[in-house]
Amino acid sequence: MARVTIQNIADHLGISKFAVSRALTGKSGVSEQTRRQVREAADRLGYDQRRRAPQNIQAIEVIFKDRTTANRELWIDVQDGVDSEAQRAGYAMTVRWTSDVSLVERLAADASGLVLIGPQSAAIFEAVDAGPTPAVVVNHVVPPLLALDQISATDVEAGVYVARYLARLGHRKVVYAHGRLGYPGRIARMRGFAEAIDAIEGMEVREVAFSDDQAADDLREAIFAMIEDGFEPTAFFCGSDGVAVTVLSELMRMGLRIPEDVSVVGHADYSIATQISPQLTTVHMPHRQMGVAAVRLLLGRANDSPELEGLPPQRVNLVPHLVERQSSGPAPSRSWRGRLRQLMTDPGE
Amino acid sequence: MARVTIQNIADHLGISKFAVSRALTGKSGVSEQTRRQVREAADRLGYDQRRRAPQNIQAIEVIFKDRTTANRELWIDVQDGVDSEAQRAGYAMTVRWTSDVSLVERLAADASGLVLIGPQSAAIFEAVDAGPTPAVVVNHVVPPLLALDQISATDVEAGVYVARYLARLGHRKVVYAHGRLGYPGRIARMRGFAEAIDAIEGMEVREVAFSDDQAADDLREAIFAMIEDGFEPTAFFCGSDGVAVTVLSELMRMGLRIPEDVSVVGHADYSIATQISPQLTTVHMPHRQMGVAAVRLLLGRANDSPELEGLPPQRVNLVPHLVERQSSGPAPSRSWRGRLRQLMTDPGE
Repeated sequence: MARVTIQNIADHLGISKFAVSRALTGKSGVSEQTRRQVREAADRLGYDQRRRAPQNIQAIEVIFKDRTTANRELWIDVQDGVDSEAQRAGYAMTVRWTSDVSLVERLAADASGLVLIGPQSAAIFEAVDAGPTPAVVVNHVVPPLLALDQISATDVEAGVYVARYLARLGHRKVVYAHGRLGYPGRIARMRGFAEAIDAIEGMEVREVAFSDDQAADDLREAIFAMIEDGFEPTAFFCGSDGVAVTVLSELMRMGLRIPEDVSVVGHADYSIATQISPQLTTVHMPHRQMGVAAVRLLLGRANDSPELEGLPPQRVNLVPHLVERQSSGPAPSRSWRGRLRQLMTDPGE
Repeated sequence: MARVTIQNIADHLGISKFAVSRALTGKSGVSEQTRRQVREAADRLGYDQRRRAPQNIQAIEVIFKDRTTANRELWIDVQDGVDSEAQRAGYAMTVRWTSDVSLVERLAADASGLVLIGPQSAAIFEAVDAGPTPAVVVNHVVPPLLALDQISATDVEAGVYVARYLARLGHRKVVYAHGRLGYPGRIARMRGFAEAIDAIEGMEVREVAFSDDQAADDLREAIFAMIEDGFEPTAFFCGSDGVAVTVLSELMRMGLRIPEDVSVVGHADYSIATQISPQLTTVHMPHRQMGVAAVRLLLGRANDSPELEGLPPQRVNLVPHLVERQSSGPAPSRSWRGRLRQLMTDPGE
């Protein structure tokens, strides 16, 4: 005989799976009458409640899709925020790396809530969206109008802000150095950066992408190509601090002075930003606070907090701020190309 | 003798105006030592505390820049949400239409908090940002990285969602009808709509803008021009329900059947959406809930709620949902151009 599922009970009563689950787990959101009907139907159909009984109700499950190393510091900071806030609220946190839908469903059944950090498969989003356990997504992108809360940061605004900051310092020819292409946050910042620059008389931006974040050769080639094209940039805004460190160090290796010849601005404020000399001017991202906010929102939903009563799902973007250090300054009054040390190998050699 | 200001005290002590104001108004965010120093300096310099004493501490001031009629229903819904939530929390709400910076500063001094609804001048944003009174902005756009909380809704996602919805119904040639150009929300939705369509094999979008939201003539001209160009659209996504009603009624006047020949999707779910026949499929926007969320965030900041402790300013975007009514359906299997009633006047006449 097939195992009786929540879906069977829902079909039997003509109500949603969500309502059945809420009723069986003793959560709010269903009437007492529904709860009674659900329990009776569960008994009648032979549903094994123990399997569904929360073992671990004071736990928050953190799900990563995989152990990708890109943005590792970002996700560790977020996880740290989740952990500290969960502890403060008396919850335990467990972290898993998985894209196994049925595992995530089982974890959800025993947990107070899920925090999905970073990219996830469409199937995971669907399963979590359909299930009764509250969940919060910490990431740039979710499926459109997905009915889960999402925590992220304001990327477009950061791009606009840095463009205006560089303009105030007198920079007119600037570069956005993506590093490797394809990260949604970097693309969003580029959009804000480019749109703000478009609106500033006489200011121009070029985009540079590398085969890899640390591909210093690609940067060199791009710089020589820009100079040949009559475009001598005096400032770089970079896709991340890692990219900024590659750009800054490679520019110095080419003989340029930072910030006297060229300003470099990073993004995130990772520890590397203060390890490099000159220390990096960068956009400080509230990654740890994203984790804290995720837990508060999650527990608010799980405990039917009056703060959230009647409100639809939210996309909460925390606002970063610029930290001015030593790698940025006024635009140079003179061309720096004479100072370039030739590092390109002749491709004909 | 010149009146002693908070700025004078701040300059005297070498601390921020914000810290002085927090200290004088008894709010948190300054150490006890600072508070004592500020009070001593205020006495010594002859600062008139009574002028700053909150008269009206249980009040929320709602500020509109002007009584623009565009989006009137939107702002009334937001205001209604602010009012009901303020009342529930025991606060009075007052609404003003002003762009007078010194008036807003005076209002701020006597209120628990400010809700800035709709567009505002840069000077108002600066003044409110610099002042000590908590404030929340309800609008699409704020200055980049402005250190105030903002409530809005997810426009780009809504555009993506509607594009995929129309694609599922078989539509391949679709139009985004802006109405009048220049509203940031409409432009953001268009971006999501166009980006999603770009990613769908064989799907195409054209943009149509009118001189005015209700310029039915502009729509007619645009449709005849598209047809001449071999582009026969089967669905329209519109910048607002008002624009959608103009589009839907004008298409019917031209002899087309809705949704058999052409589907029309609106945006907002204003009352007009169910007044028109066929009733409008539209994106339901949580405008009232934006007002509710604004008050909760504002009072959370004003009362140093543990929910917000340690978190930076936020951009909170509430998530809308699609309401399917009668104006959308499967793409037609046959061309509708033979059904067109010629309504264009010959421009040569």
